[in-house]
Amino acid sequence: MEQPLYIYNTLSGKKESFQPLHPPKVGMYVCGPTVYGEPHLGHARSAITFDVLFRYLRYIGYDVRYVRNITDVGHLVNDADEGEDKIARKARLEQLEPMEVAQFYLNSYHSRMDDLNILRPSIEPQASGHIIEQIALAEEILAAGFAYVSDGSVYFDVEKYNQKHHYGILSGRNLEDMLGSTRKLDGQGDKRNQADFAIWKKAQPEHIMRWPSPWGEGFPGWHCECTAMGRKYLGSRFDIHGGGLDLLFPHHECEIAQAVAAQGSEMVSFWMHNNMITLNGQKMGKSLGNAISLEQFFKGEHQLLEKPYSPMSIRFFILQAHYRNPADFSNEALQASEKALARLTDAWENLLGLKPAEQSSIDISTLRGKCAEAMNDDLNTPVLIACLFDAARIINTLKDGDASLNEADMKELQDVYHTYFHNILGIKENNSTAANANAYAKAVDLLLSIRSQAKANKDWATSDRIRNELSAIGFEIKDTKDGVEWKLNRQ
Amino acid sequence: MEQPLYIYNTLSGKKESFQPLHPPKVGMYVCGPTVYGEPHLGHARSAITFDVLFRYLRYIGYDVRYVRNITDVGHLVNDADEGEDKIARKARLEQLEPMEVAQFYLNSYHSRMDDLNILRPSIEPQASGHIIEQIALAEEILAAGFAYVSDGSVYFDVEKYNQKHHYGILSGRNLEDMLGSTRKLDGQGDKRNQADFAIWKKAQPEHIMRWPSPWGEGFPGWHCECTAMGRKYLGSRFDIHGGGLDLLFPHHECEIAQAVAAQGSEMVSFWMHNNMITLNGQKMGKSLGNAISLEQFFKGEHQLLEKPYSPMSIRFFILQAHYRNPADFSNEALQASEKALARLTDAWENLLGLKPAEQSSIDISTLRGKCAEAMNDDLNTPVLIACLFDAARIINTLKDGDASLNEADMKELQDVYHTYFHNILGIKENNSTAANANAYAKAVDLLLSIRSQAKANKDWATSDRIRNELSAIGFEIKDTKDGVEWKLNRQ
Repeated sequence: MEQPLYIYNTLSGKKESFQPLHPPKVGMYVCGPTVYGEPHLGHARSAITFDVLFRYLRYIGYDVRYVRNITDVGHLVNDADEGEDKIARKARLEQLEPMEVAQFYLNSYHSRMDDLNILRPSIEPQASGHIIEQIALAEEILAAGFAYVSDGSVYFDVEKYNQKHHYGILSGRNLEDMLGSTRKLDGQGDKRNQADFAIWKKAQPEHIMRWPSPWGEGFPGWHCECTAMGRKYLGSRFDIHGGGLDLLFPHHECEIAQAVAAQGSEMVSFWMHNNMITLNGQKMGKSLGNAISLEQFFKGEHQLLEKPYSPMSIRFFILQAHYRNPADFSNEALQASEKALARLTDAWENLLGLKPAEQSSIDISTLRGKCAEAMNDDLNTPVLIACLFDAARIINTLKDGDASLNEADMKELQDVYHTYFHNILGIKENNSTAANANAYAKAVDLLLSIRSQAKANKDWATSDRIRNELSAIGFEIKDTKDGVEWKLNRQ
Repeated sequence: MEQPLYIYNTLSGKKESFQPLHPPKVGMYVCGPTVYGEPHLGHARSAITFDVLFRYLRYIGYDVRYVRNITDVGHLVNDADEGEDKIARKARLEQLEPMEVAQFYLNSYHSRMDDLNILRPSIEPQASGHIIEQIALAEEILAAGFAYVSDGSVYFDVEKYNQKHHYGILSGRNLEDMLGSTRKLDGQGDKRNQADFAIWKKAQPEHIMRWPSPWGEGFPGWHCECTAMGRKYLGSRFDIHGGGLDLLFPHHECEIAQAVAAQGSEMVSFWMHNNMITLNGQKMGKSLGNAISLEQFFKGEHQLLEKPYSPMSIRFFILQAHYRNPADFSNEALQASEKALARLTDAWENLLGLKPAEQSSIDISTLRGKCAEAMNDDLNTPVLIACLFDAARIINTLKDGDASLNEADMKELQDVYHTYFHNILGIKENNSTAANANAYAKAVDLLLSIRSQAKANKDWATSDRIRNELSAIGFEIKDTKDGVEWKLNRQ
């Protein structure tokens, strides 16, 4: 490594040199999806951001254990008009089963992430599968005196915690201000303080997902799962915790408080947050009518979309913005990304067709370093993409014969381009198979039309040659009264 | 439904009319993979058998909740030469993490099952995610008096159970005979009786997967997970429990004993078992050198394989045997299946190209009933395939013009064929894209060779026409000193 990797740490508010605790191993935890809805652009941005980090860390030689959780302890409840008795009388099979809903959307999430060429994490723990660990965390926090039990629930005592530690260390908030803005005279239920949050919640009759606990039947508070599962799979101190900026407060703030309360020390070295996505300058949301699922983007099935956008166009568009900047989706911007991506893909194909010369007339030795420099500067993918455009310009010059590279330089150029374009940015070939098949079918039609013309000209040699060679390749040709029909037999 | 579905129930030893407990809902549980190795033919046969059942039950109108578990509570242990102290000193991240191994093979299992066109079950619960439910089951059996605690483990008391119930009801075994053949004078450790089995096992220092329990740190016995998860997601009584014949004893026998001991009654209406697979007449196993993974089959990468076999060939081969019969794999048998499958696929393609006549000269009205009859007779897929071959013969007669069908009959034939071939048997089009692309590329080469010949003959009209039309389709043609080069631009 020529220069070290720097990563922006939300906790310190600056870029820091990345030094893992147990090199060559790196422990990385990223907040995954809540699987009660179709995956959307927000899921794509977070997954792509940390996929590129995962790919780059592995490329520079680290052995990464990448944990991304599945939040499946959802808030599905039974119908309000069904009394507790009625629910209890229903056969299990006739009741709504939240895990069936969660499995459906988990499968959907996996499919869309595969479309986007996102590598699978090392472990994908489900919150519902780690209740024991979450109960144990609640017990530790209670034992340390930073939580209290109230009517079957366990709440984190934020004020008490803040007397000894700093609640707000990640988000830069101040508890006094928070209390000033959120304290209410009533309606805080069984919590002592409006700022307190649930580590364990008592299950109401309508709650379907419930487990036994020392405090009665209930379910874990949302913030609990990441602290419990991060510690289980990565240890009490690990290198990176990532997620979307919308999770910074309260989720990640609460995670820090839980870890410090339970074990006396912070759990994470680097906190990383990807910025948000807007659509035509607007926040996305169901109420705004602009919540477009990834599947709708890929199929072009939404009134706001002029056309379908391939998974690789979406991926490339997201990488054209730095992960800490907002990204605004629009038809115009996506179509510009499509064109830019096509230029880089063309350059790669042209590069593969180039032949080396005896001597190099240009110097490409700095390209690799510039690509690494971009990535080492807090994963600056827009700068990396600019480096690839520089390479594409060089490739065009070589193709036009206005410059030359010897064999070693040609290999170097190919290796750098392939490494950063395919392996780090994670761009894969756009399999527009249907369109290609159509073009090839037209070429076969043309060939058969040439044959008909040859027959008309009594050029039997040509017409027989076309028929015989096509048959040898595996095409079946049939002359009918309506013209020529053909099909390709299974190869 | 003209006739009811009959399913062979291992418990009664005969085919029984299938009547679900809560129509139109059906609860179905199938033993899934242990994710500590590459998926192989055994996984494929079980998954395909119950996939076809799942598809058929849905087709005849049932709303199926299909649960297939993931056994991830494995037996990975730390290195024997590492003392307990040394393990404890190691950072979590530097220790072997069984869930990382399990995730790897789970991903691999999902990919291979997708290749085989197997529908995802409704819920895929992981054993490690249901420890609470398994501890609760052990406590119920203890409370009922059919288990005992011994040195931190909980064992099922088979002899005591057998005094009141019948241990061996599924496998037709007799406890006295079993004891006679397995009782040993020593070496039964902390069990009272050799036939007893563990519901909960005390974790030894080298065991990595361990959870707290009322009996100390440990992990659930293998038989426990299916009983606990089946009950959780399908209720205390559900319709179908499936699995491979190798699981009949002891696994399913123990499941029945656990359920009866815990709740006083059996949990399952229909027990179904698919038969085993042999390779060239031999049992498969690592020690025999013939354990071939599905991926090796698909790629043809094993010394025993003459060529790659596509996922659909494997699927079709498996369906050519009835699920309760053994199936013997060999190169010869697989190649025969490939040819048979190609005939059925060709017939489907020909059927789509047929034009209806004014009148039908043959009667196809019995085909649908015959297909249903085959499936209703305990999922007799070989008979169903024979019905499809009958249909293929009719299609050839129609194609040759020796018979005719009117529009309604043509639609009926297409619908029946599509339903049973694609939707029930689950055959999808064989995307041999690479081979097809190669054939099409050769057709373009031929076209350009015809163009060169035309140029040589000074037939400029033909050579220009080929060049211009290929360009219009999207092909880029370049005449170089080494000959003609072409590429297809992205469509």
